[in-house]
Amino acid sequence: MLSDMNDLPEGLSTSEEVSLDELQLSQRNHGMQLEGLRYDVTPAGMHYLLIHFDVPEADEASWRLAIGGLVRTPLEITMANLRARPSVSMPVTMECAGNGRARLAPRPISQPWLTEAIGTAEWTGTPLRGLLEEAGIGDEAVELVFRGADHGMQGDVEQDYERSLSIGDAMREEVLLAYEMNGAPLPPQHGFPLRLVVPGWYGMTSVKWLTSITAVAEPFKGYQQVAYRSRQRPEDEGEPVTRMSPRSLLVPPGFPDFMTRRRFVDVGDHILRGRAWSGWGPIDRVEVSTDGGDTWEDAALGEPASPFAWTPFDFVWKATQPGEFELCCRATDSEGTTQPLDQPWNLHGFSNNMVQRVPVEVRAPA
Amino acid sequence: MLSDMNDLPEGLSTSEEVSLDELQLSQRNHGMQLEGLRYDVTPAGMHYLLIHFDVPEADEASWRLAIGGLVRTPLEITMANLRARPSVSMPVTMECAGNGRARLAPRPISQPWLTEAIGTAEWTGTPLRGLLEEAGIGDEAVELVFRGADHGMQGDVEQDYERSLSIGDAMREEVLLAYEMNGAPLPPQHGFPLRLVVPGWYGMTSVKWLTSITAVAEPFKGYQQVAYRSRQRPEDEGEPVTRMSPRSLLVPPGFPDFMTRRRFVDVGDHILRGRAWSGWGPIDRVEVSTDGGDTWEDAALGEPASPFAWTPFDFVWKATQPGEFELCCRATDSEGTTQPLDQPWNLHGFSNNMVQRVPVEVRAPA
Repeated sequence: MLSDMNDLPEGLSTSEEVSLDELQLSQRNHGMQLEGLRYDVTPAGMHYLLIHFDVPEADEASWRLAIGGLVRTPLEITMANLRARPSVSMPVTMECAGNGRARLAPRPISQPWLTEAIGTAEWTGTPLRGLLEEAGIGDEAVELVFRGADHGMQGDVEQDYERSLSIGDAMREEVLLAYEMNGAPLPPQHGFPLRLVVPGWYGMTSVKWLTSITAVAEPFKGYQQVAYRSRQRPEDEGEPVTRMSPRSLLVPPGFPDFMTRRRFVDVGDHILRGRAWSGWGPIDRVEVSTDGGDTWEDAALGEPASPFAWTPFDFVWKATQPGEFELCCRATDSEGTTQPLDQPWNLHGFSNNMVQRVPVEVRAPA
Repeated sequence: MLSDMNDLPEGLSTSEEVSLDELQLSQRNHGMQLEGLRYDVTPAGMHYLLIHFDVPEADEASWRLAIGGLVRTPLEITMANLRARPSVSMPVTMECAGNGRARLAPRPISQPWLTEAIGTAEWTGTPLRGLLEEAGIGDEAVELVFRGADHGMQGDVEQDYERSLSIGDAMREEVLLAYEMNGAPLPPQHGFPLRLVVPGWYGMTSVKWLTSITAVAEPFKGYQQVAYRSRQRPEDEGEPVTRMSPRSLLVPPGFPDFMTRRRFVDVGDHILRGRAWSGWGPIDRVEVSTDGGDTWEDAALGEPASPFAWTPFDFVWKATQPGEFELCCRATDSEGTTQPLDQPWNLHGFSNNMVQRVPVEVRAPA
């Protein structure tokens, strides 16, 4: 925690309100409306979105993916070639590594996510592994660097968006070069015409507008690779942010107040539904609390649409008395990791998976 | 202005930052990424979105539109029936009436739009007029009330979302009952399976998830009808918010800084492109300033894709010197109305059309 810091490092805010710069980011990079948790597959325009720079202009006919660096056969591949290769369609739950950041104190100043930076899309593409085998990764290569066409400035560094994966992670069978989302060409804002999809990992890994893959002999130290690490202090080396921590969210029940999103339901039985996921393994358990986390009961789990898609759950809430309630849910994955009630802090607000809290007013029958 | 108010009315903020409640709304109700101004028709997921309550669950097969009240022949219409009627496809520019609200001081507390609450979609549907003629509007009717399936609480009033139009406005030939957006079924968040589209008007008029149209003998006084009025003080009757004021926006040139969205370009000639629109008539003129509004030059106008779609414009900026610049543009419509440099204030921040300001750093060649 920061209690032992005398001066607040740059990039943190103790304000309980967000700046217009943060708001501006939030207007572009939107969350999923939480009622969207009702869908197995999120409608494309409702899926969360984080674009570091601008959505690039892209022409499918002239788009090329270059595979180079330490490979035996450098490749330059058209979209027609990619589409002619074996294709896989797979529902994948994706979450931004910064989801929940805006509820931390002090607050890391960046895209100010609350809870909504999630979505599940059915991605269609060709497995990356086939292309890597065709190119022939050299024995001296340790990582692949994925470059997107989105270009900009971040932390005073001018850059194309770039992220790397180890050869082992990149060769996993579920890793796709995707050209369709929910059965249609990728929308521009989701990477048209081509993006990487790395199931189980936070979204920054799934590079959009993919232009090149380069095999390199040293671990990649580019801006985004160094930025996405959990650290307590700016000078810490930190731990890389990789797979999604277990998390669960409820479809908010009843109906909302416009401004506060506080919910209203009537006295009676309510089936609470939600979704849970983890990048570390299947969801083993989801518990629901209707008293703000004091007591918990098990929810019933459904089947996920794929090993990398969220797991549906439901729970019958017997709301017998009018009053104010706070609904919560928490997931436990096959590694035994459970969501925390209080979030451990890190400098950039990554891998937040704090329990969601849904304030509800139960009303007496009219 | 509020300078003569001793106490700030409820619902206004003098903070230069926004609350987490406002942020929460901004996470759901997103703007269009401004680079999206490059498209004649906005990709569906990039179009701005304002949902007062929740996106309702909807089943096209069982959906019915009821036309009733003061009509000779009440109708209950299936989606199949609507789709079998004459259809029209039309690009329409739509803007939220609250666009720009978050830059006002004091700031009306509501969905905190900056500049991005816009979009142009190609809507396909059947003209409302044909259905109204079939139902036969009674002579005593003065307005039609349009009801959506979205339900919630606003200003302590539980409500379905409802808005009215005069019979004359509703009978205009461009008013559509739309079931497609950009050639596909409406996305859930844009009103699936059916919405009203009233070209030229701010978006609150184009009721989504449309369930009923009711002819009434008195002007409608429902919550949303009373809320969307321009007033200076809470006790004012105010003026109804109707058609879109003239506005223009630039595609931000060059590339951005992640956090601030400040732009970078190199010394040289840059073609600045943008779009301009008005709900009151065609765009007659767009001017561009590269010095923050001190001096202005005319941009070249292109042709809009329909009488209700934005007008493209471009302007060659000869950026001969490195330094800091502020780009602006302003539109004038056929009524002679021009965008203001300083926004006249109103209590809920409606019909804001203040000139956009785009900070750009021009860099010397490397």
